[in-house]
Amino acid sequence: METATTLGLVAGALTTISFIPQVIKIWKTKHARDISLGMFAIFSSGVLLWLFYGIQIGSIPVIVANAVTLGLSLTILIFKMRYK
Amino acid sequence: METATTLGLVAGALTTISFIPQVIKIWKTKHARDISLGMFAIFSSGVLLWLFYGIQIGSIPVIVANAVTLGLSLTILIFKMRYK
Repeated sequence: METATTLGLVAGALTTISFIPQVIKIWKTKHARDISLGMFAIFSSGVLLWLFYGIQIGSIPVIVANAVTLGLSLTILIFKMRYK
Repeated sequence: METATTLGLVAGALTTISFIPQVIKIWKTKHARDISLGMFAIFSSGVLLWLFYGIQIGSIPVIVANAVTLGLSLTILIFKMRYK
């Protein structure tokens, strides 16, 4: 595989899995006061558009990474509304 | 401009600016307890790789979006270490 492609895949994996510790933290503490609702609302909208972008250009890595990120980001958004 | 390109640019703008409300929130409250250090450490590493990826493929939008996101993400990481 090309170096650039490998780099992109590792980058995508890292930015996607990075949301997991935040989901776990809020789940355990039931606290989300310091989390910005604005951040996760805007971020989720942006990731949804990235997903549409991936579908339009037919890129499986972009589709998969953004579908997973959207799920995690929306989970944090729901937690924020629940535990504010 | 192509629909896909416009979609990608709007998506990139949204995911980038989404970090601004979180930076402002921590700056104002001086509180970052509910923020996951793991999330912003892994996320920043991933965004750094996205930046290298952008440089390798010569994509100005990928470079610019990730350079700005890296700055904002590292700011949140520093705030988290300072106000934990």
